[in-house]
Amino acid sequence: MKRAFYYLSRARQLFMPRIPFDQLAATLAAALVKLGFNDERAVLCARLFAETTRDGVYSHGVNRFPRFARMIGNGSVEVGARPRLVNRHGALERWDGGRGAGNLNAWESMNRAMAIAREHGLGAVALANTNHWMRGGSYGWQAAEAGMMGVCWTNTLPNLPPWGATEPRVGNNPLVLGIPRGDRPVVLDMAMSQFSYGALASYRQRGEALPVDGGFDAVGQLTRDPAAIEASGRPLPIGYWKGSGLALVLDMMASMLSGGLATHQIPADPERETGVSQFFLAMDPGPFGGGRAIADAIVGSLGVRYPGERTLALRAENLKLGVPVEDEVWARIVAMV
Amino acid sequence: MKRAFYYLSRARQLFMPRIPFDQLAATLAAALVKLGFNDERAVLCARLFAETTRDGVYSHGVNRFPRFARMIGNGSVEVGARPRLVNRHGALERWDGGRGAGNLNAWESMNRAMAIAREHGLGAVALANTNHWMRGGSYGWQAAEAGMMGVCWTNTLPNLPPWGATEPRVGNNPLVLGIPRGDRPVVLDMAMSQFSYGALASYRQRGEALPVDGGFDAVGQLTRDPAAIEASGRPLPIGYWKGSGLALVLDMMASMLSGGLATHQIPADPERETGVSQFFLAMDPGPFGGGRAIADAIVGSLGVRYPGERTLALRAENLKLGVPVEDEVWARIVAMV
Repeated sequence: MKRAFYYLSRARQLFMPRIPFDQLAATLAAALVKLGFNDERAVLCARLFAETTRDGVYSHGVNRFPRFARMIGNGSVEVGARPRLVNRHGALERWDGGRGAGNLNAWESMNRAMAIAREHGLGAVALANTNHWMRGGSYGWQAAEAGMMGVCWTNTLPNLPPWGATEPRVGNNPLVLGIPRGDRPVVLDMAMSQFSYGALASYRQRGEALPVDGGFDAVGQLTRDPAAIEASGRPLPIGYWKGSGLALVLDMMASMLSGGLATHQIPADPERETGVSQFFLAMDPGPFGGGRAIADAIVGSLGVRYPGERTLALRAENLKLGVPVEDEVWARIVAMV
Repeated sequence: MKRAFYYLSRARQLFMPRIPFDQLAATLAAALVKLGFNDERAVLCARLFAETTRDGVYSHGVNRFPRFARMIGNGSVEVGARPRLVNRHGALERWDGGRGAGNLNAWESMNRAMAIAREHGLGAVALANTNHWMRGGSYGWQAAEAGMMGVCWTNTLPNLPPWGATEPRVGNNPLVLGIPRGDRPVVLDMAMSQFSYGALASYRQRGEALPVDGGFDAVGQLTRDPAAIEASGRPLPIGYWKGSGLALVLDMMASMLSGGLATHQIPADPERETGVSQFFLAMDPGPFGGGRAIADAIVGSLGVRYPGERTLALRAENLKLGVPVEDEVWARIVAMV
């Protein structure tokens, strides 16, 4: 998915304005204050949006901001809501997100999981009643940059037929794992669908076939034709039956631990997808020592790019040249301020 | 993978003796005592082998017992070794398996993680210096049947080329998630390769193509031909780049937390694969309540089989008719007693 958006960005960014990172973050923060956030939360929320685009995940950063604003407008996102501790069982806590801003709720939840982990070695927050967390990888980076291992996932609206079915009954439930390694952490951010609908659209718009099978066509054959998959509504889970099973158990764990909604209960309209359930686990490997050397040796043995490596390259480029934002999106945000 | 072995078993079991479960477990226990285990550990180790076959995972149960015995003989498995606590950071513990029997070490580790979780809500054991745990799903069932959520994984010898490479540099690192749901838990047990080498061999022996692409042929094309993949040594990670990344981060977490070997350090000979690293996480959802109703509603909404469902059907059949064991394997075990 990230690869697709990377190529999308390479093609499109010739036509996109590049905004200096600090200007982008400040403008978003001003827009968020206009939407009703207090200054401190506006700054953090803006930073999370801007960093996502800075890191090359163009689908879930600033380009997504107009939809986020619309979902405040339609009542799906509560501007003033903050996560609230509901129950505690030792180092495992249940929180309610109050349908607040998804990225702020997720950031606070990982922060809380890390605080527990500093004391107890590991800590977890199960978060009910929250909203789309935008880029899941943000919370893997958040943990890894603080020297922690972070594991988190979210459920989503039903957008993926489980293996053996034709109707979307599971979510693509992104799973994120972050591993500290100084200033070069390893961060994996993967949805349970092989390609997102956004990725399918970008392949179709470029007139390209998918690099591998991405779903079923209208007669139930596996295909690399993005338009055929968009038409059938049958994208493929990663690993066929395996990703289908993993999407299911991630949904079960998040909703059972948080007491929140499961995928089958989440509104299927992306503009009204709210009340999702998430899970955040932090582990503190520091006191055991030696982790960095092990991590470096593994990455060194791999011989190919590790998850997170391209992020650093894109981040450096976008900090140097400015962060590419779609023209009409930037115009809309500037008009909000 | 399990599907493949299921079909394998359906074809072969006409020619296999079916041994009553209790007789099978008792015979294995007697063989294990001959191999040097004390009575108590022999009974548990035998039960884990017998239950794996009873549950239809024929590749990693009794049929694997002769190799297990050979690996005691060649010094890879230490009969007398027991896991030893090395370090503790709150609810996160580091243990050393002393190269003991893999299934016993894993069972004790999940047991310990559950004991921590009862006290702290969640608990984890990182286990270095252990051996192949046989069926990973055993420890998911172990947790779920005790009312706990269990998450565990192991690294393996390098047997899978990461996406973009042709040489095996990551392991297929099975990941297991178990979710309590009374007597019908949901247990997912998935390796990071789309098909194991065992599964490829069984398709080849039956002259069948794989149901989906399973790897690359000699000229680097994706193929459903099992023999071509065996020849190239390039099976496919689930979800292409995604499973490749997940295999990497699971290896990193297990080895960094346990202080044990990473995949690139594990002997590549399956008969001498020892010193692997594993991770066991248990979470106790009980005090929050309501989990069973949420789990039942999710399973009910799925419309297709859930992970673990077929296990229960095979278990019932094998308990009724006797557990199928390959003829020559059974003869060899009986000769040991």
